[in-house]
Amino acid sequence: MNSARSNNITPAQAYQELVERSRELSRINAIGSLAGWDQEVYMPPGGSASRAEMVSFAAELYHRKLTESRFGELLGIAQSGKLSAGEAANLREWRREYDRGVKLPDEFVVRAARLYSESFDVWQKAKRESNYAFFAPNLAKIIDTGREEAKYLGGTQNPYDALLDKYEEGLTSVKCDALFTQLKAALIPLLRKVKTAKNKPSRDLFQGASFNIEKQRVFGQQVSAALGFDYNAGRLDVSEHPFTNRIDTGDVRITTAFHLQDPLDALFSTVHESGHGIYEQGLLPEYRGTPLGTTGSMSVHESQSRFYENHLARSRPFWEYWFPKFQDIFKSETAGIGFDDFYRFVNRVEPSLIRTAADEFTYHLHIIIRFEIERDLLNGALDAAQLPEVWRQKYQSYLGVDVPDDAHGVLQDVHWSWGSFGYFPTYSFGSAYAAQIEAAMRRDIPSLDEALRRGQFSVPRLWLNEHIHKYGCLYTPSELIKHATGKPFDHADLINYLNNKFKSVYGK
Amino acid sequence: MNSARSNNITPAQAYQELVERSRELSRINAIGSLAGWDQEVYMPPGGSASRAEMVSFAAELYHRKLTESRFGELLGIAQSGKLSAGEAANLREWRREYDRGVKLPDEFVVRAARLYSESFDVWQKAKRESNYAFFAPNLAKIIDTGREEAKYLGGTQNPYDALLDKYEEGLTSVKCDALFTQLKAALIPLLRKVKTAKNKPSRDLFQGASFNIEKQRVFGQQVSAALGFDYNAGRLDVSEHPFTNRIDTGDVRITTAFHLQDPLDALFSTVHESGHGIYEQGLLPEYRGTPLGTTGSMSVHESQSRFYENHLARSRPFWEYWFPKFQDIFKSETAGIGFDDFYRFVNRVEPSLIRTAADEFTYHLHIIIRFEIERDLLNGALDAAQLPEVWRQKYQSYLGVDVPDDAHGVLQDVHWSWGSFGYFPTYSFGSAYAAQIEAAMRRDIPSLDEALRRGQFSVPRLWLNEHIHKYGCLYTPSELIKHATGKPFDHADLINYLNNKFKSVYGK
Repeated sequence: MNSARSNNITPAQAYQELVERSRELSRINAIGSLAGWDQEVYMPPGGSASRAEMVSFAAELYHRKLTESRFGELLGIAQSGKLSAGEAANLREWRREYDRGVKLPDEFVVRAARLYSESFDVWQKAKRESNYAFFAPNLAKIIDTGREEAKYLGGTQNPYDALLDKYEEGLTSVKCDALFTQLKAALIPLLRKVKTAKNKPSRDLFQGASFNIEKQRVFGQQVSAALGFDYNAGRLDVSEHPFTNRIDTGDVRITTAFHLQDPLDALFSTVHESGHGIYEQGLLPEYRGTPLGTTGSMSVHESQSRFYENHLARSRPFWEYWFPKFQDIFKSETAGIGFDDFYRFVNRVEPSLIRTAADEFTYHLHIIIRFEIERDLLNGALDAAQLPEVWRQKYQSYLGVDVPDDAHGVLQDVHWSWGSFGYFPTYSFGSAYAAQIEAAMRRDIPSLDEALRRGQFSVPRLWLNEHIHKYGCLYTPSELIKHATGKPFDHADLINYLNNKFKSVYGK
Repeated sequence: MNSARSNNITPAQAYQELVERSRELSRINAIGSLAGWDQEVYMPPGGSASRAEMVSFAAELYHRKLTESRFGELLGIAQSGKLSAGEAANLREWRREYDRGVKLPDEFVVRAARLYSESFDVWQKAKRESNYAFFAPNLAKIIDTGREEAKYLGGTQNPYDALLDKYEEGLTSVKCDALFTQLKAALIPLLRKVKTAKNKPSRDLFQGASFNIEKQRVFGQQVSAALGFDYNAGRLDVSEHPFTNRIDTGDVRITTAFHLQDPLDALFSTVHESGHGIYEQGLLPEYRGTPLGTTGSMSVHESQSRFYENHLARSRPFWEYWFPKFQDIFKSETAGIGFDDFYRFVNRVEPSLIRTAADEFTYHLHIIIRFEIERDLLNGALDAAQLPEVWRQKYQSYLGVDVPDDAHGVLQDVHWSWGSFGYFPTYSFGSAYAAQIEAAMRRDIPSLDEALRRGQFSVPRLWLNEHIHKYGCLYTPSELIKHATGKPFDHADLINYLNNKFKSVYGK
């Protein structure tokens, strides 16, 4: 698989060998992706044990290949050459991954992968039975494993920061605090206004009507295809927790979850995951198998899904195009519902229990709760046994809601079962990036709303292809945001966006 | 992954290291299985290129691990120890695979796997467009690759024999000829009788009625579950060509293909694949990852699917239980159809174009045609360009049918796209084994028909579990048939079975 074995090679030869190794790593990654997708979408229960073995086998193989000393030698040789910007970016990302990889012992990587794969099944069962106690022993192990990982990765005072950096290069607890402080300051007055608002949007627009699942699926698929998700290079399936899984640029899979009495939940999930999928499909195939052919930061990824879900699919012009079609498909179910009622319904603010069903405003409070809990779990200020109680207290104090049981509380998210501590904050950063991207797109395309009203969804997609997608990992996340929007990351666009949206629904 | 590296180990230690290596090989196999299943069932078209890479990567990895010289050393050490029958069987199978593996160069294995994966997609497209010319260049390469493989494997005068032996240890052209001569001698007089029969079964029992696909799926799933296919350890999906794919003992996947106007095609496919699936699910989990925990010969595998499809699901007692249920689900579609008409319809003899839709009688003529073609292709007596013409001639001369196009002719089977030359004859041997197994089962269980009439399908399943499934690879195929049925392989049971079945439909 690796042609040259000597150190007597030129930087260009070393770079080429790195490309070959990167492609091989990418093939192993694809195996892990397929195994993970299948586990959540189609695998029968009897497959759990051997699937855990398959996933940990692929993880171990990846880790071994990544951390071969040859990889380090090649990085050193290649770095001494004259590099194009793209080559330099590939080297930067390979170096980042290699340096992190060599810090983690093989044994740890295998053990962690097996634990996460098994824990996913345990979490599913615990959630189904709303029984946190069943999941708690696994979570305790996962927390220990997270601390262990942070210790290996080191380099920062705060163990949580080591994990945050995995998902967004350079992200720290301090940066999270800065964003979350701004968000709290903006959101708390808005939530107060919601409570006292006179003309509130309907909370139950469809009044128990039943929406045929097959029709929902067809409509969702039509919408996502119109937005630009390419079904020749992707699929839509059903899973408990919607997700996007890239096997390869030409094979990107999204999922949703249907509910008979709530057609919008599945639709917004489909649109959200389509945003992720369109990003993956927008990578340039010529870079396949190298970092330039992959998406980099989780926050930028999340900016794409949130742009599609919130900035497009909760906007007036979007629904001016789709609402008549929606009404056509669900005639009796939507009889008597006016456009304005519908628009205000899909944008209503309502403190709730479930993060994935939360509105754009209170959503960030769900994230802040997870951020605080993760930070405290990792720092040892909190342990697994206390979680349901802490969860209840925080939901009461931040959102004013009572948590009735574990399934609607601490068990709702899959992330911790996978050991993904430090992932949640990227959702809020994703929202902030999405708002900054929308502002830039509107400067470039003053007629954007007109295009959306006409169903010309290739207009925003091509802008994103051009300003975000095609770059892959060429830039670091902060460089990319600056390059795409013309200014460094700035909370202000998100705050402005939320204030404007709020006015459009509640009138000042 | 492999603990001991020294040669200073006991035979027992060597055996244990072989078990660990076998388990690792089995994990790599599971990756290939999952990738193959997904490719045929759910993968979007854009995934083809990277899937071919994934499959060849797994094949190469498997081949490298298998053929490490350490594996050969361990075999030598372990063989000198005192072995239980099970351990001896594992060693026999490891040895067989290792010896074959080391004969094939790494480069060849990778090239062949990539060719087959790509060719599968080309075949699908060619079949869809009924255009053999589109597939021909791939097939020519596949034939060369088959010849090349036979050359590496060597050891026989006839290149085709080297490939036959892959699917059934010890199978040769001579043994095939012996069975096929007997079958021709029995079938030709029967086909003559069919032509002149007075009271022929209906050829169009349902007269164009439409059978809802979802209802077909539910009924098929109900039947297969009753037969013993465990849906906690398996799935039923849809693919162009029905197949069974074992990811692991706890995760066995079957597929079928539904047709609106022919509910029995999908049903018999589901039952057929359930027979394969029940075999895989009946292996003992304690042997997982070693040959004792796998099915051995393709003929024995096929005996299980054919036993379920033909000997059970085309029998009177089977339908005495299921026909009223079938009529209940499809009331208007089956109105006025009597039990006898139905029984004779599902057992009618009718020369036709498509192997997988052929009756139990003419089926073997389809196999004989493929056997003759494969043998001639491999021996160089025939080349890819001549295939459609030879196909047409043989179908005219053996079955008396005119082949209208490539989709209904030479492109109908997937096997050659995968490079599976030598596989087809195992179907006929499977039928012969199935008949011999039924005869033995009836000696052991005189009340079998009564059990079937009552829907007690665990009765035949438990017999198969006990006499076939649980042994895995303990015996060679011929030993297993002898052990399970009390006598060596014998064509006579199949000939008797076919004659009796024929009488029950056509009256002598």
